[in-house]
Amino acid sequence: MALDGRIEQAIGAALDKARSADGPPRLAAALDHSVFPGGARIRPTILLSVAMACGDSAPGLADAAASALELIHCASLVHDDLPCFDDADIRRGKLSVHRAYGQPLAVLSGDSLIVLAFEVLARAAADHPARAVELIRILAQRTGSPGGICAGQAWESESSIDLAAYHRAKTGALFIAATQMGAVAAGQDAEPWEELGARIGAAFQVADDLKDALMTPEEMGKPAGQDAVHQRPSAVAEMGVSGAVQHLKDILGGAIASIPSCPGEAKLAALVRAYAEKMTPVHLSPVRG
Amino acid sequence: MALDGRIEQAIGAALDKARSADGPPRLAAALDHSVFPGGARIRPTILLSVAMACGDSAPGLADAAASALELIHCASLVHDDLPCFDDADIRRGKLSVHRAYGQPLAVLSGDSLIVLAFEVLARAAADHPARAVELIRILAQRTGSPGGICAGQAWESESSIDLAAYHRAKTGALFIAATQMGAVAAGQDAEPWEELGARIGAAFQVADDLKDALMTPEEMGKPAGQDAVHQRPSAVAEMGVSGAVQHLKDILGGAIASIPSCPGEAKLAALVRAYAEKMTPVHLSPVRG
Repeated sequence: MALDGRIEQAIGAALDKARSADGPPRLAAALDHSVFPGGARIRPTILLSVAMACGDSAPGLADAAASALELIHCASLVHDDLPCFDDADIRRGKLSVHRAYGQPLAVLSGDSLIVLAFEVLARAAADHPARAVELIRILAQRTGSPGGICAGQAWESESSIDLAAYHRAKTGALFIAATQMGAVAAGQDAEPWEELGARIGAAFQVADDLKDALMTPEEMGKPAGQDAVHQRPSAVAEMGVSGAVQHLKDILGGAIASIPSCPGEAKLAALVRAYAEKMTPVHLSPVRG
Repeated sequence: MALDGRIEQAIGAALDKARSADGPPRLAAALDHSVFPGGARIRPTILLSVAMACGDSAPGLADAAASALELIHCASLVHDDLPCFDDADIRRGKLSVHRAYGQPLAVLSGDSLIVLAFEVLARAAADHPARAVELIRILAQRTGSPGGICAGQAWESESSIDLAAYHRAKTGALFIAATQMGAVAAGQDAEPWEELGARIGAAFQVADDLKDALMTPEEMGKPAGQDAVHQRPSAVAEMGVSGAVQHLKDILGGAIASIPSCPGEAKLAALVRAYAEKMTPVHLSPVRG
């Protein structure tokens, strides 16, 4: 996809600021390890796709928003892998950050990436300070507490869990940030774009639950079956494999229907359809479910 | 001091957003535990003092800046206390956050507080978006990598340490943020205020080294003698107690001399002098050194 290059370049430019020669070299290496090579970069892809569908009137700001969002996602992976959470040794097919660099630098890498996300947006604000402020507000809302991914992860430390709030915050939040930030970077209102993000997020959560239940660690590049091990709530546990697959299709249909009217509406719908295909590949049919 | 009430109110208003009824209740409690009751609130006090010395033309924005800065400081304390860093059981005379709520919520509290700091600034931006963006940029620069407190802490994970960069980043950074953000919130340039912040930070570091070497855990409300235990660089180890006390006085003299010309210059000088008195109390004379 043509967007890939744009995204990697934006993330690389963002990271260059944090790993300058003046800083501690092992932290710089750990930051690099946290962000490269990436996974699917699905959140910045959605963000830029929405920005382009809305006319992409400030491409530099959209690039900053895309990289900021991905940096937050990478930070969450580094912290979620820590021994006190998932205790994961492997991420994206290589050692997790705390396994490669130790826990102190894993904590600090996550912290630094969160900070860098906001710094990137502030540095790209010159021509559109009001848009940049709105991007920072949305990213913070969808990252922190009470409705962001930090809160989503924190629901796992509660004795009684609000399942809807948990899913909305843990996975949905950054997808809502993706659609809303794409629109805002291009000068549009955030609000009409919330539903699309929420639906993509919900679909992604179900797809993730299916992957965790059905794929091997080799296929995933990280440990599988973690939901069952940690007794986490999951669509597969709740409705079985075929029920979860049907649920996924329903959500994605609704996502396409929810796309706000915009110049690039048709192209955006095609993109969501392509993700739908990717999310429900043939080998996720219920053979082992 | 009259500023105390203003600062506590600003921090309370900021935290109310993060501990809303919609979020996970134990995270909300851990956030509260992380921030209240506070320590000396010295960074926001300096920030607001500089803002007032510069005319305090946007007091709401200055309040947001003061609370944002203190939230970052509190986040750093929560993460620094984790077992992989200082492994501290006690902070401000009560249990550290990970001892009271467990490591997962301590990690997430720190993360959420970092995010909240930027959210508070974005939400206070309406009337002065350009100032808010500059405040966010400064706060990020002094918090993250390569020159912020994250980098400062990360120097402790290096096999060879750049001592000047370590001190500048670990302690100096948030004091520079304090003076610069105070000036920017009031519509002034940041640059002329860097030296004052750097000097106050350097003085604070020396005072902290003296406290760590000379005070009891009861007096400090946290473990003492940690620099020696962790073999950390310290002004006391480097120049002895009386050398460190003289060094502290020299730095503070330079700090007062560096105050940029502004309407409230005399009052600000008096404030720094008052801090100087506080930092070198009688019982820090070299009795046990």
